[in-house]
Amino acid sequence: MGLNGIDWDEAVDVVVVGGGFAGLAAAIEARNGGALVTILEKMKAPGGNSIISDGGITAAGTPLQERDGIADSPELMYEDMLKAGLGLNHPDLVRIVAESSNEVFQWTIDYLGVEYMDRVDQFGGHSVPRCYTALNITGATIIKRQLAKVRELGMDVRTQMYLQTIIRDAEGRVCGVMVRDGYNYPDASSGVPRYIRAEKAVILASGGFGADVAFRTVQDPRLTEEIDSTNKRCATAEALIEALRVGATPVHLSCIQLGPWASPDEKGFGVGPGFSDYIVFLYGIVVDPATGQRFVNELGDRKIVADAILAVGQPCIGIADAQAVERSGWSIDRCLKKGVVKRFERLEELASAYSLPFEALEATVARYNRFVENSADEEFGKPILLNAVPLSHPPYYGMRLWPKVHHTMGGVQINTEAQVIGLDQQPIKGLYAAGEVTGGVHGACRLGSCAITDCLVFGRIAGRNAAAEKA
Amino acid sequence: MGLNGIDWDEAVDVVVVGGGFAGLAAAIEARNGGALVTILEKMKAPGGNSIISDGGITAAGTPLQERDGIADSPELMYEDMLKAGLGLNHPDLVRIVAESSNEVFQWTIDYLGVEYMDRVDQFGGHSVPRCYTALNITGATIIKRQLAKVRELGMDVRTQMYLQTIIRDAEGRVCGVMVRDGYNYPDASSGVPRYIRAEKAVILASGGFGADVAFRTVQDPRLTEEIDSTNKRCATAEALIEALRVGATPVHLSCIQLGPWASPDEKGFGVGPGFSDYIVFLYGIVVDPATGQRFVNELGDRKIVADAILAVGQPCIGIADAQAVERSGWSIDRCLKKGVVKRFERLEELASAYSLPFEALEATVARYNRFVENSADEEFGKPILLNAVPLSHPPYYGMRLWPKVHHTMGGVQINTEAQVIGLDQQPIKGLYAAGEVTGGVHGACRLGSCAITDCLVFGRIAGRNAAAEKA
Repeated sequence: MGLNGIDWDEAVDVVVVGGGFAGLAAAIEARNGGALVTILEKMKAPGGNSIISDGGITAAGTPLQERDGIADSPELMYEDMLKAGLGLNHPDLVRIVAESSNEVFQWTIDYLGVEYMDRVDQFGGHSVPRCYTALNITGATIIKRQLAKVRELGMDVRTQMYLQTIIRDAEGRVCGVMVRDGYNYPDASSGVPRYIRAEKAVILASGGFGADVAFRTVQDPRLTEEIDSTNKRCATAEALIEALRVGATPVHLSCIQLGPWASPDEKGFGVGPGFSDYIVFLYGIVVDPATGQRFVNELGDRKIVADAILAVGQPCIGIADAQAVERSGWSIDRCLKKGVVKRFERLEELASAYSLPFEALEATVARYNRFVENSADEEFGKPILLNAVPLSHPPYYGMRLWPKVHHTMGGVQINTEAQVIGLDQQPIKGLYAAGEVTGGVHGACRLGSCAITDCLVFGRIAGRNAAAEKA
Repeated sequence: MGLNGIDWDEAVDVVVVGGGFAGLAAAIEARNGGALVTILEKMKAPGGNSIISDGGITAAGTPLQERDGIADSPELMYEDMLKAGLGLNHPDLVRIVAESSNEVFQWTIDYLGVEYMDRVDQFGGHSVPRCYTALNITGATIIKRQLAKVRELGMDVRTQMYLQTIIRDAEGRVCGVMVRDGYNYPDASSGVPRYIRAEKAVILASGGFGADVAFRTVQDPRLTEEIDSTNKRCATAEALIEALRVGATPVHLSCIQLGPWASPDEKGFGVGPGFSDYIVFLYGIVVDPATGQRFVNELGDRKIVADAILAVGQPCIGIADAQAVERSGWSIDRCLKKGVVKRFERLEELASAYSLPFEALEATVARYNRFVENSADEEFGKPILLNAVPLSHPPYYGMRLWPKVHHTMGGVQINTEAQVIGLDQQPIKGLYAAGEVTGGVHGACRLGSCAITDCLVFGRIAGRNAAAEKA
C-alpha cells in the first residue's frame, strides 16, 4: 500500500496519455527535462489519429515563405485563427501557437529530422500560403520521427493501455492513473487494472472525440452514426470525460468541425481531400448540382464551406481541369484509381455524369474564368492565386463533396502553461493537457493544418512544465 | 449524525434551488404530488431573473391564434426552434416544449390566474405570431401568481439561501444540499452552513450565467465586463458549476445569446426593447449608420440580427414612424421619457441626429416601402406583416441598437423527464433540473418568448417526477 491507500504497480515522474503528435512531443520534452516518463497508448500501435492526418503543419514567418516572397507574420496567423474561430478562441492560447509556429516547425526539421515537401500551400481561411506538408503527404512521416526520438531518449510507447481513472490525492492533486493493461479496443472491460503513480504530473494528450457518436450527439444531435468521420474509430471521449469527472472545465464542446473536402464515395478521410482541398478549392470551383452555380468562396474556412454545402442539401461537385492539377503540383493518380475523382474529356461529359445543367455550368465556368483573368472573384470574394489560370484545359476532373466529422475544437480548458483549469478556474495540480483533448485554441472553427502546430506547441509546453514540477 | 455522517439540520422530500419561473413551477407540482418541499432563493427576494423579463410566453395552437386566424402548430414551433438553434437542439426536448406549450399557457391562466394582454405577437425567427404578453409587460405578473399559488399550497420561498454543495450518498445518489443560510449577495462567505436533506430529490432551477463575467468569458472571451447584460447581477454560474462538479454533462456552454434589441443608452434590459423588438423589427427598419442602408432581415432570430449588428461594428439605428407605433398597439411613452427613443418631425432630422447620410436613408426607406406595398422584402426576405404600412407617417422615431448578453443556452444535460444526465450518460439519481440552468432545448439560439414556456414545462415535469421518487 502506498499513497492514498493505493497499491501502486509502478511509479514514474510523468505519465503521458496518448501516443500522437501532442503526447510524443510532451514525452520528448519531459524526458529532456530530466523526468522519468511513461507513454500510454490505448491502441495496439502508437500514432493515434495523427498518423492518418495528411501531415500539413502551419507556420508563419518561415524562411520558405521568405524565399517565395510570401509576406506573413505570427500576428496575421493569429488574426486568421481568431476570425475562423468567430472570436470564441482563447486569445492567449492562439497567440502562443502563432508565435511559436515557426520555432516548432524548425524543431521538427532540425531536432526530429522531419522532411517536408519543398512547397508552401494555402488552405481555406488562411490569408496567405503557410502550410508545409510532410513527405509522402502523411502525418506518419512526423510520427515516425517522433517515435525514433522517443526511442533514442530511452523511452517506448506502451500500447493497449487504456486510461480508466485519473487519481487525485487527498489535497486534490493528480498523483497517478489507473489504466487497463492489455486493453483490446473497443472492449472497455478488457485488460487488467494497473496503478501507475505520477510523482510529478499526468499529461492528457488523448485526442478528440470525432468518432464518438454517443458523446458527439450530446453536443450536436445531427452528428449521428449516419454521418461519417475522417477519424480513426479510436477517436473517442473517455479520457476527456474522465478529466471532466475530476473537475476540468469544459470549453467549446459543441464546436465540432466537419471537413468540407470529404467524399461520400469513400470511407473515412480517404484520398479525395488530396484533390478537393489541395486543387479544387484553390484553382477550381464547387457547384450546386441543382443549379450548376457556385455558392461559396471555395477558400473560405472549413465551417463556411461545410455549412454552405450542408445548406445545399446534397453532395456538391468539385471541378478542376488539367491546368489546375498541373499548377498545383500534386498528383491525383490515387484519387482517379479509387474512382473518387473522375476524368472527362469535355465539360459536357462531366455535367452529364453528375446530372448538372450543362448550360448553367458553362456560364458558371465562363463567369469564374473572367474573375481569374481579372484576379478578383466579384461573386464570393475568393482569393485568386497568382498562378491560377482559367478553367478551359481538358481533361476536366470532378468529385462529389459531402462533409464528414473531422475535428473537435472543444475539450478541457488549459492555460498558456498547458495546465488543466478546474471548475474553480484554478489549475488542477499535477494535470496538464495538449492537443485535440483541449478546447480554446481554435474556437468555432479550426483552420486547416493548424492542428499539428497546436499539438506540438502545447505538447512541448506540457512536457517541459511537467518535468519541472516538484516530485 | 445522519446519512453520510452528515448532521442534517432538516429534512424535506424535495429541495428546489431557485425561485424563478422554473423553480416555482417545480415546487407547485411537487407539492401537488404530495411532497414536502422547500424552495431556496439566494437573493433577498424571490423571482430571480424571471421577474425582470418582459413576460412574453410562446404557445402554438392556442384559441387566441384561432380567433385571429393564425395557422400554427406545435410542429411548426418545433421546426422554428430547431432552425434558430442551428440543429444543435436536442430534438426530444424541443418536441416536449412545443407540444406542451398550449397546455402550459392555459395552465398559467386557468390554474395560476395569470392575465395576458389580448393580443398575439410575433418575434424574430417565429414563422407566425405566437407570443402572449403578461399584463404590464413583465414576468413579475407571472411570478406574483406563482408565488400566490406557492403560499396557497402552504409553501414559502426561503431567501438568502445560497447553494454551496450538492451532497451525494455512497451510491452517488443526490441526497441533499449544503446551503449558506443568511447569504448576503455577492459575498460567498456570508451566511452559515445549513445541511438540508432531500429524501426524494433536488431540483436545480438556478437560472443562467449571463451576468457571470468570469464563467462566460471562458466560453466566449469576447463577453468581457465591457459588454453589458440584460440580466440581474445575480445571474451567475455557481449552481451550474456545482452540478458539473458532481458529474452533470455540460451541453452547449459556449452558446451565449446576445439580445439584438438592446440600447447602449441605458443599463441592463431597460425599456428600449419595448420599441425595437415590438415595433421596429416588425414594422420598421434597422440601418447601418455609415451607409443609411438596411443590412439584415429585422425579423431574423436573435443570433442573426445580433451577429449582423456586431459585424457593422457600431450601434445601428432602429427606425419606425407614427403608423408603425399605432399599428403595433404598444405605447412608447416610457422609451421617450427615458430618452432611449427619440422623436423627430421629419426623417431628415432623424438622419441628422444619428449622423446618417440622409439621401441614402431616404432611398432605403423608399425601397423598403415598395417591399411593404408588394408584401415582399426582395432584399432580406423579412416577412411583411398583414397590417404593415409604408414608413411615411411622421413623427419618426429612432433608437440606437447594440447587443447585450441576454440568455445562456447551455447548461446541464437533461432528458425528457428533466433528470440531469451524468458523464456516463445515465441519469444522476435524485437530481433534476429545469430552465436556463439546463442546455439542449434552444441549441445555438433561443427564440424570443420561448424561455418562459421552457421554464414552466420542464419545471412542472421536474416537480412531478421529483414528488414521485421513492424516499
